[in-house]
Amino acid sequence: MSSMGRGWAVATVLMVLAGATAHAEQKPAKGRTMTEVLAASQPSDWRRLDPDNTVYLDFAAGRVLIELAPAYAPAHVANIKTLLRQHYFDGLAILRVQDNYVVQWGDPESGNKDKAKSFGEAKQSVAAEFSQAIAKQPFVRLPDGDVYAPQVGWSGGFPVARDPKAGQVWLTHCYGMVGAGRDNAAESGNGAELYVVLGHAPRHLDRNVTLVGRVVQGMELLAALPRGSGALGFYDKPEQRIALTRARLGSELPAAERSTLELLRTDTPTFQALIETRRNRRDEWYLYQAGKVELCNVQLPVRQPQ
Amino acid sequence: MSSMGRGWAVATVLMVLAGATAHAEQKPAKGRTMTEVLAASQPSDWRRLDPDNTVYLDFAAGRVLIELAPAYAPAHVANIKTLLRQHYFDGLAILRVQDNYVVQWGDPESGNKDKAKSFGEAKQSVAAEFSQAIAKQPFVRLPDGDVYAPQVGWSGGFPVARDPKAGQVWLTHCYGMVGAGRDNAAESGNGAELYVVLGHAPRHLDRNVTLVGRVVQGMELLAALPRGSGALGFYDKPEQRIALTRARLGSELPAAERSTLELLRTDTPTFQALIETRRNRRDEWYLYQAGKVELCNVQLPVRQPQ
Repeated sequence: MSSMGRGWAVATVLMVLAGATAHAEQKPAKGRTMTEVLAASQPSDWRRLDPDNTVYLDFAAGRVLIELAPAYAPAHVANIKTLLRQHYFDGLAILRVQDNYVVQWGDPESGNKDKAKSFGEAKQSVAAEFSQAIAKQPFVRLPDGDVYAPQVGWSGGFPVARDPKAGQVWLTHCYGMVGAGRDNAAESGNGAELYVVLGHAPRHLDRNVTLVGRVVQGMELLAALPRGSGALGFYDKPEQRIALTRARLGSELPAAERSTLELLRTDTPTFQALIETRRNRRDEWYLYQAGKVELCNVQLPVRQPQ
Repeated sequence: MSSMGRGWAVATVLMVLAGATAHAEQKPAKGRTMTEVLAASQPSDWRRLDPDNTVYLDFAAGRVLIELAPAYAPAHVANIKTLLRQHYFDGLAILRVQDNYVVQWGDPESGNKDKAKSFGEAKQSVAAEFSQAIAKQPFVRLPDGDVYAPQVGWSGGFPVARDPKAGQVWLTHCYGMVGAGRDNAAESGNGAELYVVLGHAPRHLDRNVTLVGRVVQGMELLAALPRGSGALGFYDKPEQRIALTRARLGSELPAAERSTLELLRTDTPTFQALIETRRNRRDEWYLYQAGKVELCNVQLPVRQPQ
């Protein structure tokens, strides 16, 4: 049985590191593996999810958690919260799974004025939030460049790209990022129909759609859904759709029900050391070090404290 | 219902273009959409699969076709063909599905000398074929650079990267590429245990593993398999494994059973025009043109003639 890609699993499954911290070996950052870097991390390197910016989506197959990005999409996030508080999403469904592209959910009757679910206090259209002023946002730059943008890096737990000349920064379509579907008009998105990136990052969508957050738990459930056989991966038949049982903002849930998941902070020396382990893999299996890392190949470690 | 990413579906599902060719509008290449470019293609822009380099994998869920790359991995491909002709793979199983990484199949008993399936005439170890001499291989360069390599492009239907100074070219770990799993030693791969890239391209694996081909049909079946909950995405329990019912080389099958799938040639002006549609999306939905395209965001169009 081959051990192809040994180090990778640690970032994509929940990690249980309790107990390992105190005994972690201290090697120079250049020679460490990701496992070693994370084992040597301090409690202050990690952060909890803000319950008021975390969406809990319940499907029959399990729970998916989304961290919202109000710093990048304040109006969309506000509208999504209004919809959540009205329990708008309860009983809606996953309508589309297009291989190597997106999973998308919404109201199956959205096109039918008589049957479509009411938006209540929420807006039917929200102005596009495709990018933000650089000055407003934190930024940890990655050193190896990008095909699509002058600069790329991480900002408060999200992958971003920047154009210093234009003074703009924007969230990028990496695996697991969540966006607000829209029709042809820029302002036709509203957050009622959301999609998640699934497969190789479709970066040509950057600045074409408002991204609103990122899946931080349960991505493996969405990614394993049957692909739709209709055009654009839509499910042909209503019975193929996957019911979205319940959607809640974390702050609506009793404290005991909220996730205790921890995410690695991106503004720390530990994150810098992690980046180095992604550029040069020191695990025994690797015979060749890439010496570089692409933005969407950095997966933010998460852990579940015991 | 939003039309997010309208143009994309055409490349990822089988296209039926019969009848459209004659009436296709002839716009300048710069302003055309992918649909328009493909509709204007000529029969000579397309190629059929070589039955002697195509693997037919049958699972309960359906059929997966792999195009082998003997130009890049001659010894591995030869060994895989020896295994196929012995029907070595029949009755083996998918053992591992790691989200955003790989699907992998092989002999569940490979670690047990008494129970492991016999290799027969095939070799237990094959020297690494991580790269090839540039001079030997065709190359259609993409214009927008790459984070990992000095040059990237397509070669005979496969995505590749090159280093002109080193005089080397190698297959890249884009979505759907197939590789030969190995243990820590470079020569420990043999083609009996194969993996398929699933998710964002893990380009750090380039030149660390011998890639042997690419899935050209059925990727949506592999991608939708349940993720394994064991370490590295291995299935914890034998009953979770997905049986590989039968694996055959196309040339072993009766002619009537062979696929008539057609793939766009990469050494044609039509392919150049396709690249331009990936760099600048002219579909009505797009408000912003990226003006660039990353290697693994070019998906080679396939079609099923009627």
